[in-house]
Amino acid sequence: MPHPLDVPPSHPFSPANLPYGVFRGTDGRSAPAVAIGDGLLDLGVLAARSAFDGAVPGADALFGGPTLRPFMAAGAPAWAGVRRRLAELVSPACPDLRGDPELLARAWRSRGEVTMLLPTEIGDYTDFYASRQHATNVGIMFRGPENALMPNWLHLPVGYHGRASSIVVDGTPIRRPHGQLQTGDAPPTFGPSRQLDFELEVGFFMGPGNALGEPIPVERAHEHIFGFVLVNDWSARDIQRWEYVPLGPFLGKNFATSISPWVVPLEALLPYRVAGPAQEPAPLPYLADPEPWSFDVALEVSVAPPGAGPKVVCRSNLRHLYWNVRQMVAHHTSGGCNLRPGDLLASGTISGPDPDSFGSLLELAWRGTRPVDVGSGAERTFLADGDRVTMSGRAGSGDAVVGFGEVSGVILPA
Amino acid sequence: MPHPLDVPPSHPFSPANLPYGVFRGTDGRSAPAVAIGDGLLDLGVLAARSAFDGAVPGADALFGGPTLRPFMAAGAPAWAGVRRRLAELVSPACPDLRGDPELLARAWRSRGEVTMLLPTEIGDYTDFYASRQHATNVGIMFRGPENALMPNWLHLPVGYHGRASSIVVDGTPIRRPHGQLQTGDAPPTFGPSRQLDFELEVGFFMGPGNALGEPIPVERAHEHIFGFVLVNDWSARDIQRWEYVPLGPFLGKNFATSISPWVVPLEALLPYRVAGPAQEPAPLPYLADPEPWSFDVALEVSVAPPGAGPKVVCRSNLRHLYWNVRQMVAHHTSGGCNLRPGDLLASGTISGPDPDSFGSLLELAWRGTRPVDVGSGAERTFLADGDRVTMSGRAGSGDAVVGFGEVSGVILPA
Repeated sequence: MPHPLDVPPSHPFSPANLPYGVFRGTDGRSAPAVAIGDGLLDLGVLAARSAFDGAVPGADALFGGPTLRPFMAAGAPAWAGVRRRLAELVSPACPDLRGDPELLARAWRSRGEVTMLLPTEIGDYTDFYASRQHATNVGIMFRGPENALMPNWLHLPVGYHGRASSIVVDGTPIRRPHGQLQTGDAPPTFGPSRQLDFELEVGFFMGPGNALGEPIPVERAHEHIFGFVLVNDWSARDIQRWEYVPLGPFLGKNFATSISPWVVPLEALLPYRVAGPAQEPAPLPYLADPEPWSFDVALEVSVAPPGAGPKVVCRSNLRHLYWNVRQMVAHHTSGGCNLRPGDLLASGTISGPDPDSFGSLLELAWRGTRPVDVGSGAERTFLADGDRVTMSGRAGSGDAVVGFGEVSGVILPA
Repeated sequence: MPHPLDVPPSHPFSPANLPYGVFRGTDGRSAPAVAIGDGLLDLGVLAARSAFDGAVPGADALFGGPTLRPFMAAGAPAWAGVRRRLAELVSPACPDLRGDPELLARAWRSRGEVTMLLPTEIGDYTDFYASRQHATNVGIMFRGPENALMPNWLHLPVGYHGRASSIVVDGTPIRRPHGQLQTGDAPPTFGPSRQLDFELEVGFFMGPGNALGEPIPVERAHEHIFGFVLVNDWSARDIQRWEYVPLGPFLGKNFATSISPWVVPLEALLPYRVAGPAQEPAPLPYLADPEPWSFDVALEVSVAPPGAGPKVVCRSNLRHLYWNVRQMVAHHTSGGCNLRPGDLLASGTISGPDPDSFGSLLELAWRGTRPVDVGSGAERTFLADGDRVTMSGRAGSGDAVVGFGEVSGVILPA
């Protein structure tokens, strides 16, 4: 059996990644952790045993509690210091952990034997609408090709406030929601949603954030981004369609939003930075980003019907976003709104240019007109009870991979 | 000088009210409190000194921290027990507090010498749109009288998720926000809002709430309502108008929302319950409320231009809401969304039938066409820098009053 810290660079959780999460062990205790290969290291144990001494001042306070919020709040210098020290601790040359079998035994856990929790209490959750293809697809379906994009869309990253309380971690079953359904001229009825959908998104957790009334300039916005997760923004299209005018989505979305448990640090994704799509018209100065802050992260969605295996129904990429993450932060704070450590900002559905890269069943099945093959002879226009939806993501390939892991959920009957 | 606990029933914070808040004393310590007359009683001190023993199990845990969230979470039986005991403690017949000068000296503070804070961390903030007159006014201004109310409006309490992080307490100055402004066919520009407005609302804090996936039935919704505050949902109309399609208000609202510091218990308002407007068409069964759960609470808004005194510009009433508070809770949870202790739900702008009862400058000045006299020879269509907006509320009159106190804020230049 290889040493648990000997993880090849082709592993999604190789030493090039070092994503953070919060786990609950078999003893019921919850603690922050870093994933390495098929295991994790308990950061609470490492900090309490002085593993960060000299490298990171105050590591005890960062990792002594049951969430990652104190670490998120600590800011980019602390993130860099911890990451540097963790890379050292897992490297073959360093004896501090590998040479201390008792400490290693206390700190290391197989990921198969722990339960993953949300990485932090989430204060506020904001969802953007930053994929041009997605906004165009939805616009064509509901308003026709001439008016597909709203007049504001190319000028600002449209976003709205989502529901923080109903964000759940990977693996949580999703109950099909009841709601008001209305078609034609008939009065609405109340019943289970018949148009339950997924939305493929990527989210990011905020670091220090800003005081109320003090915007974060676009050039410094990345200093406030702690790391990234996969987001499935479950949507009940029929509930949403009837309720959303004029104040936006509400019960059509707030019954559940799922996220992957491991937060991929911004620093791990820097090698995969790419330029986003050309922005024309040029954004206003407060929004214009002179640097490339998109990321090349391959994304996949699979659907597994009850009793059958998963079938990939969507292959997209984070680079398809029109508005980048620095622009989202700069716009969000431009009027003075304060972002706080642990806040989650999500991209909105990430649809690429090809029909098999659309990030929702609404688009993949084009409003029910092109049923999607989900394997085993089954087709879907929307999700059926018992369907399992799984999203995954990874940057790089071959011998240099940074993986996001998965976010998965099964649909329970209403 | 009268005894500080001798408060006449005509006082807004008489023993019939007993509202809860959180204060910071001159020593820097923060604690939950109950207001009585022109003073308050420190609930942390009372609990630590066993004043609730025998009446309320575990009072130490409810009031030992710096927020009211544990008490909110404790639920209706605990609320009733504490309220009963507090009424006893302040009554002339009870020696437990009045007969213990040392305890009274430690627990009592003049409200003039403390700083009020938010009563709790607010997990999620939801804003409804429950006044028919307000929705109709806005609809007429933006879409004409034929299509004033959206088709869904009479079937469900329209609402959306607001921003929790930027909720501030009474007295906090409000910085005029920058944002994208767009008129006619011109491209948008970025600059200070020119259409800054208030919105007169009432909000309520949640008690225990519900687990994800388990709706709260309308008949039991009041058991989850801890108490009420005044809400000024500051709005930048020009920013909002350009950004809000199709996902709803975002930067036009999230720069600040002000609330009054004293939470009026639901129980104190029960004598002022009234029937709301007739609901036609009848709501769907999950929303139909067989009981009268509107409240007769007189509301006022004044504007004080820089260097001048306040002038009342709006007189409205909480009873004007079309959808009542139990219906808001039942609808919010009908798809499974979980509400948590400390969540804030607000009514939306409360406009009455008369033009001087409209709850925003947008409506009072009818989109800039009827400037509002704010005294001292000044007129307003929207708010000017230096203006102070103050909202107040009270149930009852004469010798039986339950007051909300005030929420006030002054506009700082951008």
